[in-house]
Amino acid sequence: MKKVLIANRGEIAVRIIRTLKEMDVRSVAVYSTADRDSLHVALADEAICIGPAKSSDSYLDFDAIAAAIEVSGADAVHPGYGFLSESEAFARRMEEMGITFIGPTADTISRMGDKAMARQTMKAAGVPVIPGSDGVVDGFGEVEKVAQNIGYPLVIKAVSGGGGKGMRFVHDQSALEKQYKDAKKEAKNAFGDDRIYIEKFIERARHIEVQVVGDGRGEAIHLFERDCSIQRNNQKLIEEAPAAVLDAALRDDITRRTAEAVAKLDYRGAGTVEYLYVESEAAFYFIEMNTRIQVEHTISEEITGIDIVRLQIEVADGRPLPVTQDQVTINGFAIECRINAEDPSDNFMPAPGPINTLHFGMGHGVRIDSHIYPGYTVPPYYDSMIAKVIVHAPSRDAAIQKMMHVLDETVIGPVRTNLDFQHYLMQHPNYRSNTVDIKFLLNNRITE
Amino acid sequence: MKKVLIANRGEIAVRIIRTLKEMDVRSVAVYSTADRDSLHVALADEAICIGPAKSSDSYLDFDAIAAAIEVSGADAVHPGYGFLSESEAFARRMEEMGITFIGPTADTISRMGDKAMARQTMKAAGVPVIPGSDGVVDGFGEVEKVAQNIGYPLVIKAVSGGGGKGMRFVHDQSALEKQYKDAKKEAKNAFGDDRIYIEKFIERARHIEVQVVGDGRGEAIHLFERDCSIQRNNQKLIEEAPAAVLDAALRDDITRRTAEAVAKLDYRGAGTVEYLYVESEAAFYFIEMNTRIQVEHTISEEITGIDIVRLQIEVADGRPLPVTQDQVTINGFAIECRINAEDPSDNFMPAPGPINTLHFGMGHGVRIDSHIYPGYTVPPYYDSMIAKVIVHAPSRDAAIQKMMHVLDETVIGPVRTNLDFQHYLMQHPNYRSNTVDIKFLLNNRITE
Repeated sequence: MKKVLIANRGEIAVRIIRTLKEMDVRSVAVYSTADRDSLHVALADEAICIGPAKSSDSYLDFDAIAAAIEVSGADAVHPGYGFLSESEAFARRMEEMGITFIGPTADTISRMGDKAMARQTMKAAGVPVIPGSDGVVDGFGEVEKVAQNIGYPLVIKAVSGGGGKGMRFVHDQSALEKQYKDAKKEAKNAFGDDRIYIEKFIERARHIEVQVVGDGRGEAIHLFERDCSIQRNNQKLIEEAPAAVLDAALRDDITRRTAEAVAKLDYRGAGTVEYLYVESEAAFYFIEMNTRIQVEHTISEEITGIDIVRLQIEVADGRPLPVTQDQVTINGFAIECRINAEDPSDNFMPAPGPINTLHFGMGHGVRIDSHIYPGYTVPPYYDSMIAKVIVHAPSRDAAIQKMMHVLDETVIGPVRTNLDFQHYLMQHPNYRSNTVDIKFLLNNRITE
Repeated sequence: MKKVLIANRGEIAVRIIRTLKEMDVRSVAVYSTADRDSLHVALADEAICIGPAKSSDSYLDFDAIAAAIEVSGADAVHPGYGFLSESEAFARRMEEMGITFIGPTADTISRMGDKAMARQTMKAAGVPVIPGSDGVVDGFGEVEKVAQNIGYPLVIKAVSGGGGKGMRFVHDQSALEKQYKDAKKEAKNAFGDDRIYIEKFIERARHIEVQVVGDGRGEAIHLFERDCSIQRNNQKLIEEAPAAVLDAALRDDITRRTAEAVAKLDYRGAGTVEYLYVESEAAFYFIEMNTRIQVEHTISEEITGIDIVRLQIEVADGRPLPVTQDQVTINGFAIECRINAEDPSDNFMPAPGPINTLHFGMGHGVRIDSHIYPGYTVPPYYDSMIAKVIVHAPSRDAAIQKMMHVLDETVIGPVRTNLDFQHYLMQHPNYRSNTVDIKFLLNNRITE
């Protein structure tokens, strides 16, 4: 691999370019006209404009990106997260062009993108799943049978949904038929795909996910787990590694089983297997697998010392995994706070705008992943995340203490951000005592 | 310990305040009128102006600092490095005031500040020293006898000298008497103390130093060693940890012997025992012990994961060392580049001035310790160091590669800095292959 095109923008494009520089691999940035002055454009060895601000005409435009690959002579493409990172069609196009896609095969993306098939696949590979239908349910008769088996409350999910979209909750039998019919109709309208499946509704749970990397030839390792329970509208806000609620035996069990399952799939690249974790039962339930690098991969890097983007590139290049499972150990505790350009006092509305004042708290155990700089203007067209503040300390308490003063020291303006809100969360007694679940913000009306 | 006054400025004051925040200890900054807008003033819980720009009237003024301690009600003082950090008189004044001095006792500072006594003390404690006189030489007769024993070239050193000052080289016997007399005269004039001692002159050596922390009651640990061979005029420019030229046996031997020697002294606090290391002989020769935190402590923190400033505070507070020697292990490789506001094209003259543009390369394995921010003006009165760029990676090669792109990405202006010079050094074949000694810059005329 000699030259990699990064089909993304923002902090993850910067993150990937930095690792490419360390590997002495040339980097090609692509950018929309709105991102002309972006850091990823300045840092890459080459940069190609691929279209106007609107994502569908630039960062999501297969043809524009394919043309940039040809023009630059890149032999590989890194999709980052979001945008085309989980597009089966894009991965297939790359395969057809003979370009290395830094991620899994198109077939794997397809299988994991179909939530019902992903569930079946992971169940067969030995991972615990939420009780529910074995894949797509066909007709109300089958729906009733499944409901009888798993009980209420349950949730009807669209196969093509995800991230909280295309879900309907059913609390007792009387509502079942109407909700089933409405769910199919809605899924048809929203996704052009009316296939649905059914799962037991898990009421109080944490979000715990296992980071994996596979070589595509039956070897896979895990980089332990992350606890991402602090969410707002299914958007993660704070992530931690490792999950402090797990004891060594539980950690060992879920991470080992996950890595084994991923190995069975001949999975290639980095991926995350997401679970709901019910503390009262000490039980994990598979939600979905993300077949790409994730925003919060940083905290797994901090506790293991491993550069996950480098691993992605190495396995995509056909090289073996450079570490064995027993060489991957946990060192300390890491927390990431996502800093967004948004207005917490106005229902967290995105608040794009200029950054004139910028200072990050830094020093021992502090990592900042960001694409902003003084003079940069956050454009209104894309994700509102502008920085990831990551701390690494010997314990969860020490990491929280460090995060508090790093957030306290950080100044970003005049653009509005959630810095103060994150600082407030760090001080919240429930966060401190780690007695939270994925509904924490909702149930405490913190986000209203 | 409830409130600590930081008798320092710049990045080390910021560094100390951050750790105090993590420990929930209140911090008091002191500042000269030239440092009114400094980051350490903004970050501390309280700040007290102690005088005008000139150090002797502010940061070195015992009375002003003692008054600030009384006014603020601080119960401890952290001296940082430089300024009063190795002043026996200041430490004694603190002892008399009943204020905890975060460092060794005044007696220890005194003993180690007297270079001849330090050499005798460390020799007696089992540390290898440069062949030479047993302490101060009295009269030319003794000088001749010592010279006969150790041979030429030798060096005559003033007891009160240090950092390259008060040294005379003697290449053969014919010059001995004149140099001896001149050395005494010069020392008398420069330091008001004409005591001298004699050492064999070590021609080609590396600078390797061992980081130690003692509890003041006979326990001491080491945090392994640093290689600081890249120096200009005895000023360190690049530091590495661990020293890549040492094999495990040599590392184990020198670090263990150093920690044992320091334990014998009932040493309290952090300290650094500096050695010349002659590769051809695989031999260490004690130079001096610095009884304070050092600029380059950061790289030892990176490879061990231990916050050394926190340790300083804990042992000064009478607490035991929180880790045992076997809990201190080396993880990866760290490099620090000192970024100075100076003009490499004008013989590295200090170049104070405004910082309007500021962007640091950051991300995985990058640590920035700095007190500058956009809008800050580097004052002309103090040390020209404005930032420490620290990288941590699995190996020396990976760390160099990372440092290259971090320096490359970093932009500081319009103030002149040595950023490009550091980048040039990172690419130098001798630096790359680690075939350097403390005269590397001089012998390669790189500093001319």
